[in-house]
Amino acid sequence: MLKETMERYGAMVEDALEGFLPTEPCRQSRIFEACRYSLMAGGKRIRPMLLLEFYRLCGGKPEEALPFACGLEMIHTYSLIHDDLPCMDDDDYRRGRLSNHKVYGEAMATLAGDALLNRAFEIMVAQTALPANRALAAAACISRCSGMYGMIGGQVQDLALEGKTATLEELQEMVGLKTGALLRAACEGGALLAGAEEQKLQAARDYADCVGLAFQIQDDILDVTGDQAVLGKAIGSDANNQKTTFVSVYGLETCRSMVRNLTQQALAAAEVFEDGEFLKELALYLAQRNK
Amino acid sequence: MLKETMERYGAMVEDALEGFLPTEPCRQSRIFEACRYSLMAGGKRIRPMLLLEFYRLCGGKPEEALPFACGLEMIHTYSLIHDDLPCMDDDDYRRGRLSNHKVYGEAMATLAGDALLNRAFEIMVAQTALPANRALAAAACISRCSGMYGMIGGQVQDLALEGKTATLEELQEMVGLKTGALLRAACEGGALLAGAEEQKLQAARDYADCVGLAFQIQDDILDVTGDQAVLGKAIGSDANNQKTTFVSVYGLETCRSMVRNLTQQALAAAEVFEDGEFLKELALYLAQRNK
Repeated sequence: MLKETMERYGAMVEDALEGFLPTEPCRQSRIFEACRYSLMAGGKRIRPMLLLEFYRLCGGKPEEALPFACGLEMIHTYSLIHDDLPCMDDDDYRRGRLSNHKVYGEAMATLAGDALLNRAFEIMVAQTALPANRALAAAACISRCSGMYGMIGGQVQDLALEGKTATLEELQEMVGLKTGALLRAACEGGALLAGAEEQKLQAARDYADCVGLAFQIQDDILDVTGDQAVLGKAIGSDANNQKTTFVSVYGLETCRSMVRNLTQQALAAAEVFEDGEFLKELALYLAQRNK
Repeated sequence: MLKETMERYGAMVEDALEGFLPTEPCRQSRIFEACRYSLMAGGKRIRPMLLLEFYRLCGGKPEEALPFACGLEMIHTYSLIHDDLPCMDDDDYRRGRLSNHKVYGEAMATLAGDALLNRAFEIMVAQTALPANRALAAAACISRCSGMYGMIGGQVQDLALEGKTATLEELQEMVGLKTGALLRAACEGGALLAGAEEQKLQAARDYADCVGLAFQIQDDILDVTGDQAVLGKAIGSDANNQKTTFVSVYGLETCRSMVRNLTQQALAAAEVFEDGEFLKELALYLAQRNK
């Protein structure tokens, strides 16, 4: 059931992303290619799936929410391209292949990131199928979550923590913004787009916050215990970089139990919805993932 | 008259920009500082002024359009920050002071640009004072003009022309996107926000296109004939970089007459509006500027 739904949503998102990225030849078509390279690189599409599902659970047809689901995935992708730049994390590989700037150069990778962020808002505000006030509310939620009070704020906090030991409070706030904010955007954004009432909006936020934190703790666990070949990236990088992680603060066993507890809380939040099976299965899947 | 109106609009924009950039202390306040450094660096605010004026000419109160005027200025500013990065134009100075990355480092400058682009859309979609459908229409126009079919497209074309001689057609298309698109966003965006009819929208586009092209040709003229102290930057940089410019293609005299002709066309477009005095004076001012 989980696998089928993920595949169905995944295929919808891949198709729609294709349609939102132009291919026609023109003088700047190299940037379309650079954007496509990273956007169509086989991400898990968790954020757009969650947006579509919350939109459905709050009464809408998932297809209608595709511009927002795809916009959110473009925002996620631009952040990865800029994160990999030499002046940021300086990563040569992403998802098992060369990072954007290694293929297209730093200037083009910078512009490709800018273009994806810009395109994300363009496709959200240019759609005319949904009521304008709901579209604005969802776009406002997504932009707040991705901006200086959201994901970008988390990236700045992460930069500031480089080379020093973070307190648990600093770690939690940074993770809540850097990883958590876009999951919040997915869940709350989908619900807002469907015009959901406050009880459902709150459940969407709760689910996102629990899943987001569990996701990051599981990432830290996998950096210690994961299989390099399965993960597609080197393990032990946090320890090598002397980064403070949930594992370095709490140890593996406590972290595993935190992931279990947070997942239970996510399941409870999903109870608000009549048909919250997919949310529950997805939360369990993410907590048990090995990559 | 021109000076007073520019000062009045300028003061409105400065105040509003201040309000849209947070100052409260938090763990990521350094990025607020980096954004402020470039945003409040004394730009001419031509784009926000045009947006406010077209909004007024199409029946609105300028104050209502401030989130869009300020958003547009943030987009302009982010593009300058990223343009100055070492991997792009590698400029150490901007408006007579150190460029963003020289003060805050490359990582923070990259994020500050991202944050300003994101914030621009955030303040446009989060405002609730204007009718939602008009807000969406204006945001769609601005995002199209600033994206891969607009300003970013022009930046990519500019990169592709580096070190080679451009044809006139290539030069015109590149300039039309890189410089012209945001002026189009200002004029058409302001008119759309006010719900203007097609005749006025067309006049806004015509005015923008004439003023935009004249602006760039004047820039090329000033790079040859300008006063370094007045301009606040080195002259002769186009020739030193062997860049194709309007002056290198047509020569100074023809360029001066092109600026005059385009300005006359802009004045004609302004005739569509009952009260188009400011538009006319601004077009003349921009054509005669020495910096």
